[in-house]
Amino acid sequence: MRTLIIIAHPELESSNLQPFFKAAVENYSDVNWHPLSTDFDIEQEQKLLLAQDRIIFEFPLYWYSAPAILKQWMDSVMTTKFVTGNRYALSGKELGLVVSTGDAESSFQAGATEKFTMSELMRPFEAFANKTRMKYLPLLTIHQFLYLNPDEQQRLLVNYQQYITNPRLDHFKDQESWFENELQNRIEATDPHAAELQQILDTIKNRQDELDDLQWNLSEMKKEEDS
Amino acid sequence: MRTLIIIAHPELESSNLQPFFKAAVENYSDVNWHPLSTDFDIEQEQKLLLAQDRIIFEFPLYWYSAPAILKQWMDSVMTTKFVTGNRYALSGKELGLVVSTGDAESSFQAGATEKFTMSELMRPFEAFANKTRMKYLPLLTIHQFLYLNPDEQQRLLVNYQQYITNPRLDHFKDQESWFENELQNRIEATDPHAAELQQILDTIKNRQDELDDLQWNLSEMKKEEDS
Repeated sequence: MRTLIIIAHPELESSNLQPFFKAAVENYSDVNWHPLSTDFDIEQEQKLLLAQDRIIFEFPLYWYSAPAILKQWMDSVMTTKFVTGNRYALSGKELGLVVSTGDAESSFQAGATEKFTMSELMRPFEAFANKTRMKYLPLLTIHQFLYLNPDEQQRLLVNYQQYITNPRLDHFKDQESWFENELQNRIEATDPHAAELQQILDTIKNRQDELDDLQWNLSEMKKEEDS
Repeated sequence: MRTLIIIAHPELESSNLQPFFKAAVENYSDVNWHPLSTDFDIEQEQKLLLAQDRIIFEFPLYWYSAPAILKQWMDSVMTTKFVTGNRYALSGKELGLVVSTGDAESSFQAGATEKFTMSELMRPFEAFANKTRMKYLPLLTIHQFLYLNPDEQQRLLVNYQQYITNPRLDHFKDQESWFENELQNRIEATDPHAAELQQILDTIKNRQDELDDLQWNLSEMKKEEDS
């Protein structure tokens, strides 16, 4: 799966979060890190988009939307001819948003300071995905990155890696298999603890069937309780 | 009441709608027609905003939002220091949006091609008004201007004039008094039919009390029926 990460950040050199994310995915050969500038070639950008399976818009929240640099790029590159008409060039590809904000998660709801949820505020992107026949992914929102402790940062890093590289984000089982692959890759990358890790991985795989059964039973029980 | 109309249109010279709107308000001395360019002075723009009672963002819908030129201007001019902090420079002022689109009104709803209502798509502006303590006005959306017949265009023109110049948009009674003022202004502007118009205006004024009673009775009856 090929993923293009379109970074729309007018002050990229002063961002704390973006270098953290960049480092998290630099070992994935199918991931393309693509910071926007105001100067770009429309045809080249369109060609780049065509080669992807997943397209990510990654930006800090500026006035409840993306910075102008992303809109400028969208207004120019996403021509009607390119994305609709007979071609629907982006049809079937996935669109994900990675949005960072200095405000707390609890502020984004009715009655709180920001008044609307992030899903509501990102409607224009959802409408764009709808119009261009892309599959709109659940948002990945990062609230107050600088307040995260090392454990929380580590969890965020893994979530981000999954968001960028996991072909299927929506199921528990697919997350498990993504972890298995990650572990296998690390073992193959001449890890000094290879034997130990291989043993862990084998154990995980053996227990996968057991876990699947458990997961299914749990979800059924939960449904019964909820109804 | 002083109104600033901020025009965000990258191809203003080829717009059919904007000259129509410009002509509709050019005789109002308290209305400031302000087309954006990419080159502006932040302090001068802030000073201009401070002098207004109502601020209008007027633009064609580009990918379910304003063209990038407006976001660029907002991201630069609407600094945190200016609009929040101790100053809340725009507090109490009104924010209105005049949005034009080539798609039909019926397309903007769940289940239709555009999927979301215009109110939903404009949430980022509503959130902006909320944050800056402005009063967010109901939208004025123009669908498929080129399909309007002369009568519909005339109605749109009057709606637009009200949207720009009527201090209170929300009540039937205030619309009536806006029309009275408009008529009075035209009589004073040495109209050849002055006497005739004055007679009409007097009749309207005399009937105002009667109309108010009728309006109130109607709305009470309607409430009873609805409940």
